[in-house]
Amino acid sequence: MSDQPLGIFDSGVGGLTVTREIVKVLPGENIIYFGDTLHRPYGSKSLKNIRYYTEYIARYLLEERGCKALIIACNIASIAGQKTVENKYSRPIMGPVEAGVREAMKMTRNNRVGVVATSGTAESGVYQKLMSSMNGQVQVFAKGAPCFVSFVENGVFTGKAVQAAAEKYLGSFKGTEIDTLILGCTHFPYLQEVIQKVVGPDINLIFPGLTMALDLKATLSQKGLLRESTKAGDREFLVSDLKSLFPGFIKYGEKFLGMGSLFFKEESIY
Amino acid sequence: MSDQPLGIFDSGVGGLTVTREIVKVLPGENIIYFGDTLHRPYGSKSLKNIRYYTEYIARYLLEERGCKALIIACNIASIAGQKTVENKYSRPIMGPVEAGVREAMKMTRNNRVGVVATSGTAESGVYQKLMSSMNGQVQVFAKGAPCFVSFVENGVFTGKAVQAAAEKYLGSFKGTEIDTLILGCTHFPYLQEVIQKVVGPDINLIFPGLTMALDLKATLSQKGLLRESTKAGDREFLVSDLKSLFPGFIKYGEKFLGMGSLFFKEESIY
Repeated sequence: MSDQPLGIFDSGVGGLTVTREIVKVLPGENIIYFGDTLHRPYGSKSLKNIRYYTEYIARYLLEERGCKALIIACNIASIAGQKTVENKYSRPIMGPVEAGVREAMKMTRNNRVGVVATSGTAESGVYQKLMSSMNGQVQVFAKGAPCFVSFVENGVFTGKAVQAAAEKYLGSFKGTEIDTLILGCTHFPYLQEVIQKVVGPDINLIFPGLTMALDLKATLSQKGLLRESTKAGDREFLVSDLKSLFPGFIKYGEKFLGMGSLFFKEESIY
Repeated sequence: MSDQPLGIFDSGVGGLTVTREIVKVLPGENIIYFGDTLHRPYGSKSLKNIRYYTEYIARYLLEERGCKALIIACNIASIAGQKTVENKYSRPIMGPVEAGVREAMKMTRNNRVGVVATSGTAESGVYQKLMSSMNGQVQVFAKGAPCFVSFVENGVFTGKAVQAAAEKYLGSFKGTEIDTLILGCTHFPYLQEVIQKVVGPDINLIFPGLTMALDLKATLSQKGLLRESTKAGDREFLVSDLKSLFPGFIKYGEKFLGMGSLFFKEESIY
């Protein structure tokens, strides 16, 4: 079973930022990445529809491909469908929300935490609820940044348009005195440079990817599922619509991620 | 049959710019508008997948709802699926490409025409092919502007981010000496102000909507399908995912379009 791949999925290429951390922490693992480019962006869709896609992809990765664990990299997919998937399968299922929250609670000094995410995640109230349940003192400010995903999928990580959008979306954190900002969307680490510049150097940016990778390692180890190999594992990158994967992204994404060549194939699972 | 509604569809709210022109030219017609917000944006998807959605929505509007004519407002849906739909149904089916091209050929003085569209439409080569077949002298320059649709769907029609994106996308027309620019995506008329400012006042912008509405009137009249009513027709606005319809769009869209209240309902056709 330890040779079976890890299944990682996202609405598009955002989950590659999580994959990068998993590859660093668990280099020997075989990986199947699935980007649902046919249905991206998820961030604005109804939870009912996102749950349907999440269950569909989980079935493909866990049943058809026999993945030993499932990493739901996408925040809104985890919010919409992780519980249903956990109830159906006994294999480890992981999402980014808890990891991000745990990390933020460790980092904040003044108990004022911001979350920037897609509209769906920001409006879901999930981050707010989870943080309040862990610490009644914490104040959470969540803000949607709907156009960020579109920039990333197009391979636009910096420049005037991103800068203007970041100023527009992040401007509302002014006056909140947050000292910690969770990037509640797997696409946003690509925009880290611009985001950090706009919010200023005193605010800690939280990417759940590394915490997720460390949690995953602990879980696999505990269940005897670690693949202890000195050779790098196989990595397969799949998308549901190859045309929707922009050459612009591949060009800049490969450089940004540093995981080597991103060779994507289309897999018609729907 | 003349009381039967017109069916108009688009990937989202872009087709409302065409609907506005149809309402002006044919105020007595009953209209069912369908925005496939669950699957937007279409512009980057493979033609195979867009064809599937186009056929599905055509079946809903023409068979289930008995529409007397179908207006495919979305450029890429018309490119991907109009022929298949025309082969299946004997009712009038209209798309924006031919209307835009005819209008541009009338307007250009120097036979240099630009097309700004979604990546899918720009790369399809359809505008280039159609114009060359009509006039061997014409030179066509097509350019994709992938983030424009996302701005519009979010209700962002002006401002710094749109301006920066417009400069980036439209900058490549510099040096081409075009005197006419086709907006080859129904979403782009919402950004008319910024687009005109960036390309300068000497370039004619072509919106196919009005030409489509006049063509439609002629076709309906010829087939005895015109609804000659002194009262305004009924208008029904449907989307496949209500959550994906942004309050921001409704707020600014109603004002921009001036067709009165846009009350959208979700219709699960898939």
